[in-house]
Amino acid sequence: MSNSKMQLAAVIYGKDDLRMEERPVPLPGKGEVQIAVACVGICGSDVHFLQEGACGTFLIEEPFVLGHEFSGTVTSIGEGVTSLKIGDRVATEPLVPCRKCDLCLTGRCNICRNKVCFCGTPGFDGGLRAICCHPANFCHRLPDSLTLEEGMLLEPLAVGVHGCERAGIKPGSSVLVTGAGPIGIATLLTAKASGATKVCITDILQERLNFAKSVGATHTLLVKARDDPQTVASKVKDLMGCEAEASIECSGSEEALSVAILATKPGKVVAVVGIGNTNQTIPAFHALLNEIDIHFSFTFRKSHEIAIELVASGKVNIKPLVTHRFKLDKAVEAFECAKNRQGMKVAITCND
Amino acid sequence: MSNSKMQLAAVIYGKDDLRMEERPVPLPGKGEVQIAVACVGICGSDVHFLQEGACGTFLIEEPFVLGHEFSGTVTSIGEGVTSLKIGDRVATEPLVPCRKCDLCLTGRCNICRNKVCFCGTPGFDGGLRAICCHPANFCHRLPDSLTLEEGMLLEPLAVGVHGCERAGIKPGSSVLVTGAGPIGIATLLTAKASGATKVCITDILQERLNFAKSVGATHTLLVKARDDPQTVASKVKDLMGCEAEASIECSGSEEALSVAILATKPGKVVAVVGIGNTNQTIPAFHALLNEIDIHFSFTFRKSHEIAIELVASGKVNIKPLVTHRFKLDKAVEAFECAKNRQGMKVAITCND
Amino acid sequence: MSNSKMQLAAVIYGKDDLRMEERPVPLPGKGEVQIAVACVGICGSDVHFLQEGACGTFLIEEPFVLGHEFSGTVTSIGEGVTSLKIGDRVATEPLVPCRKCDLCLTGRCNICRNKVCFCGTPGFDGGLRAICCHPANFCHRLPDSLTLEEGMLLEPLAVGVHGCERAGIKPGSSVLVTGAGPIGIATLLTAKASGATKVCITDILQERLNFAKSVGATHTLLVKARDDPQTVASKVKDLMGCEAEASIECSGSEEALSVAILATKPGKVVAVVGIGNTNQTIPAFHALLNEIDIHFSFTFRKSHEIAIELVASGKVNIKPLVTHRFKLDKAVEAFECAKNRQGMKVAITCND
Amino acid sequence: MSNSKMQLAAVIYGKDDLRMEERPVPLPGKGEVQIAVACVGICGSDVHFLQEGACGTFLIEEPFVLGHEFSGTVTSIGEGVTSLKIGDRVATEPLVPCRKCDLCLTGRCNICRNKVCFCGTPGFDGGLRAICCHPANFCHRLPDSLTLEEGMLLEPLAVGVHGCERAGIKPGSSVLVTGAGPIGIATLLTAKASGATKVCITDILQERLNFAKSVGATHTLLVKARDDPQTVASKVKDLMGCEAEASIECSGSEEALSVAILATKPGKVVAVVGIGNTNQTIPAFHALLNEIDIHFSFTFRKSHEIAIELVASGKVNIKPLVTHRFKLDKAVEAFECAKNRQGMKVAITCND
Repeated sequence: MSNSKMQLAAVIYGKDDLRMEERPVPLPGKGEVQIAVACVGICGSDVHFLQEGACGTFLIEEPFVLGHEFSGTVTSIGEGVTSLKIGDRVATEPLVPCRKCDLCLTGRCNICRNKVCFCGTPGFDGGLRAICCHPANFCHRLPDSLTLEEGMLLEPLAVGVHGCERAGIKPGSSVLVTGAGPIGIATLLTAKASGATKVCITDILQERLNFAKSVGATHTLLVKARDDPQTVASKVKDLMGCEAEASIECSGSEEALSVAILATKPGKVVAVVGIGNTNQTIPAFHALLNEIDIHFSFTFRKSHEIAIELVASGKVNIKPLVTHRFKLDKAVEAFECAKNRQGMKVAITCND
Repeated sequence: MSNSKMQLAAVIYGKDDLRMEERPVPLPGKGEVQIAVACVGICGSDVHFLQEGACGTFLIEEPFVLGHEFSGTVTSIGEGVTSLKIGDRVATEPLVPCRKCDLCLTGRCNICRNKVCFCGTPGFDGGLRAICCHPANFCHRLPDSLTLEEGMLLEPLAVGVHGCERAGIKPGSSVLVTGAGPIGIATLLTAKASGATKVCITDILQERLNFAKSVGATHTLLVKARDDPQTVASKVKDLMGCEAEASIECSGSEEALSVAILATKPGKVVAVVGIGNTNQTIPAFHALLNEIDIHFSFTFRKSHEIAIELVASGKVNIKPLVTHRFKLDKAVEAFECAKNRQGMKVAITCND
Repeated sequence: MSNSKMQLAAVIYGKDDLRMEERPVPLPGKGEVQIAVACVGICGSDVHFLQEGACGTFLIEEPFVLGHEFSGTVTSIGEGVTSLKIGDRVATEPLVPCRKCDLCLTGRCNICRNKVCFCGTPGFDGGLRAICCHPANFCHRLPDSLTLEEGMLLEPLAVGVHGCERAGIKPGSSVLVTGAGPIGIATLLTAKASGATKVCITDILQERLNFAKSVGATHTLLVKARDDPQTVASKVKDLMGCEAEASIECSGSEEALSVAILATKPGKVVAVVGIGNTNQTIPAFHALLNEIDIHFSFTFRKSHEIAIELVASGKVNIKPLVTHRFKLDKAVEAFECAKNRQGMKVAITCND
Repeated sequence: MSNSKMQLAAVIYGKDDLRMEERPVPLPGKGEVQIAVACVGICGSDVHFLQEGACGTFLIEEPFVLGHEFSGTVTSIGEGVTSLKIGDRVATEPLVPCRKCDLCLTGRCNICRNKVCFCGTPGFDGGLRAICCHPANFCHRLPDSLTLEEGMLLEPLAVGVHGCERAGIKPGSSVLVTGAGPIGIATLLTAKASGATKVCITDILQERLNFAKSVGATHTLLVKARDDPQTVASKVKDLMGCEAEASIECSGSEEALSVAILATKPGKVVAVVGIGNTNQTIPAFHALLNEIDIHFSFTFRKSHEIAIELVASGKVNIKPLVTHRFKLDKAVEAFECAKNRQGMKVAITCND
């Protein structure tokens, strides 16, 4: 990494402390490619870092470059890379597993014990800069039909894909999604593409529900933070005319998790995607009596390939998700916008 | 069932022996409804009965009324029936399980040990007549938006739904369907509705492939009866640009089963829906080396509910499947048409 | 049920109100057999009813005869019963599903929507009397090698069988069982019979741990009610030398559920069998980050057949579980003994 | 590998052409350990190579050292190895996956597309020599309680473990194993350790059945090569008093596969472990009508860890499997013995 060239990067130091700084331009190591970052999405977990200095039990101990949702163009090839060439447009998969531990060897790479990299989380610099490097095996070449902005959106879509897989969405099913932020929307889109015929989505913001309706939600329900979960669950079932055959919690709200458990058909699954409080209270007796299982869903697992297929085939139209765009030097303003939950996905352009 | 009224019915006596005869009009027993049959589809298994006097190991021992794909309107209600009323439009589920055996109690009703009824197969009169009776629990009320002809088509669609479930279709996957008859088409439609982004379908008739293309197949391949399976499998993979992530055999052809095994991605599943020879030869060493599993798929299992959802939601447009229509008194001609494999589904109208 | 003969029964009226009363001797209805009850086990849920007037959300509204774990000898045969004859020794399966609802038809009989009977719970008289009747299909004939007391113990063993199935016990695995009461012990025995090579069991009573050790627990850990779950989980892992590859919560304790989640290997399952508080707090972020799933396990599902096989084959020695025995007329004393958690299973003999 | 020291090795050149030759002693590369081979088992696939010059579609193109079942003692450590030290006793896992392909990353390492090594198969030298090298990550340290001969037997036991997993053995189940060679016996032992209460095993040699009986088979059936599968299947069911709830084909015989399909309970699984003819004929219509699935099982997948646990815990006593022992310089005689199917496992000692 001995390179005299410097570049601007968005570095987080702690709670409410995001700084634009000069950082060295990295050179690709063995198996890596260097990428001119096109655009970076701001994720709910990024906002957690900024507002709380932490996301769940991940604490900011050393400053790091934020940004784990990004796409770009390959500018340089490291030793041994044959799968990509300069000029390829790629979406990056931020979590790089060791591929050696017992979890990797049994197909659970996303919960790898010794993650080699998890861009833009404590200990690993992310993509909020003009140039970064990433292992070539975890860069996905974009089909010509996809824009770089769609490439950036593959990351949240992959989260939705994995959540739907963990929930076991079946064709013809009625699905509940709690939370209509970007992950909730990605989940909604995937559920519909997987054959769900009804998707009810809940949120505390009417504009998010309107957005959800515009991209395919069949039912929406406005809730308040302290609504009684049993009451909300009854409304969900009334709206859909049936219990949810699968539910996916995408808000991080404890009440929403309760709603999901109470609205789900006996014997079926609630997948939990949203990151919320460290400890959460669930209606355990109801879940026991009805054998409603809880499947936790962390990031993605061979989901980018599926996300690309869904977008390239036209089964999912992910484009409308980006509602706000900023340049890299306005990254701090971009985070203000995301914190205020204006619109849906806030994107930061790092190269034009 | 002591009723002096008589009606016309299409009765099979054996190989090449289908007769139009007078049969009594049945009255509904306990838990049954009486149905004015609207239309009946001719299935490949019906043609097997007519051409071979048998379908697999099911032999015609006593004459019976053919017809297991049908819809109609409830005309009378038997004792204890509360779920339906006179005038309801229904699709019938022909296989009625005992709901008491070990298989029923573990959710495998379709392979019930003591089937109470399997309309239109040896031992059980089917729907090719103006009036029949059926257990109310196995009649599905049609939403207003569905026509009775669509109702009739729910049965083959349910077969496709179950086949796709047994194959484990995932969103974004590439699927191979061998055989482009009505079941192959129903399977194609379900696979696409389940999120498959590529579906390659094979057949020995170009017009069937054209039909498949018109309803959503992304790739088609014309094959000949004695083509080398390895060669065909290579063509399938070349066409799709990848191995099949799930394959569904819908033709009953032994060669097609081999093609499916050879074209499927290691570790994935070939579902077998098509009824073919009693014994079939498979490329066992290839399957072993690649852990390609074979899942057999018989009829349907809680699949009608899903089929209704898929059609009612617009995810599946099943209507084009019917290409030929006959009146009941022309049933023999209708079977000639089906035997010659003209068009796709041949339907017989029993009441106007 | 017009029978002038009367018999003694243990009837619960509410919290702390268990009465010995005269009740009519029932005659078997259609599909039922009449049983001379041999012995009845007292279950934790019975103690809940007595101590709290409820078990979870099941409230005592009308008085009913307690007792859902029992065996006996057939004394009379109802209409249509062919599977049993007078003199057969049977174990009863207390939960009788409707076998018609969507859950029954998909193999989830234990969470049936319209339970026909659930002996010894609100609305259904149980077995704490000399003579009772039960559907023949839910009476399991005992092999000659099993005693009637072993027959009685098949019910809690079936709970353990179902819990192990929901947890996904594999041969060679290390298993955590929290709670060393009768259900915890039944689970331990099943886990070992299923190939678990290490089973660590926790409890707040040293004598229960000693019992567990004597019947095969490889590791035991004494805990206190308010121990920090993270600390206990660490001790469990230290003791076993590894994470639990499956955990089964059998105590109903909220802390124990947290321990189970924290001690389980990433990507694996915690099955919840124990009935505890209506709402329970779980370490959700840890579960999310490690995709540790929670599978709730209610009663049993085709588990009695397995339980019989395990006992008859000698794979499970269930006999030592009974540590206290009382006659029916001493049922109130028997419940005192069970409330004080003396020994392990308290049995009440209804006929000699 | 520039080492002047030479050693004796058993090299196969083709059909009926096994030679004892001088080969260089290898030095451990990066990530490898050098092993003084203790003992090597002769596998059915080794005998296929010798008798047919091939095993399935694996052809001998260049001569290679045979031997894929072996244990030994670490004599030297390659660069970067930290998990093992000189003097460690290890069992080797012969198949080394790339850990990079799509199959590896989804937990299907055993069917890896780019196997790095598969000792003792075409292209890769095996263990029939005094000294060999192997990747440290695929060497399993033996607990003190296991002998090196038991270590050698972990390989066939791992095959049995994987076969049982693919078949879905449940506690209390009745299992059919076809073929009582070493793999059949390993499967029988694993099935019993997994909770199977009945295991019926078939073979064409009475002495193998006697051996099976002595190590836990509950039922045995002597068959002839051309017996009618339907008749044999009926005998199996009569013997066990029930259908097989899981079947595992371990003989490579086509008839045995048919027997397995015909004797298995509807809705259950036949796992195929035995390597037989390239193409095999199956009773497809029976399998379809009864939804009997076929799961192919190739080698093992994280199965050695389980095999070690089963042996170390005493759940499986694998020792009796070795019935014949030879020194390395008598390897040709050892193969003669194995070809004649005398006894069970033939072992070759390479170092004392």
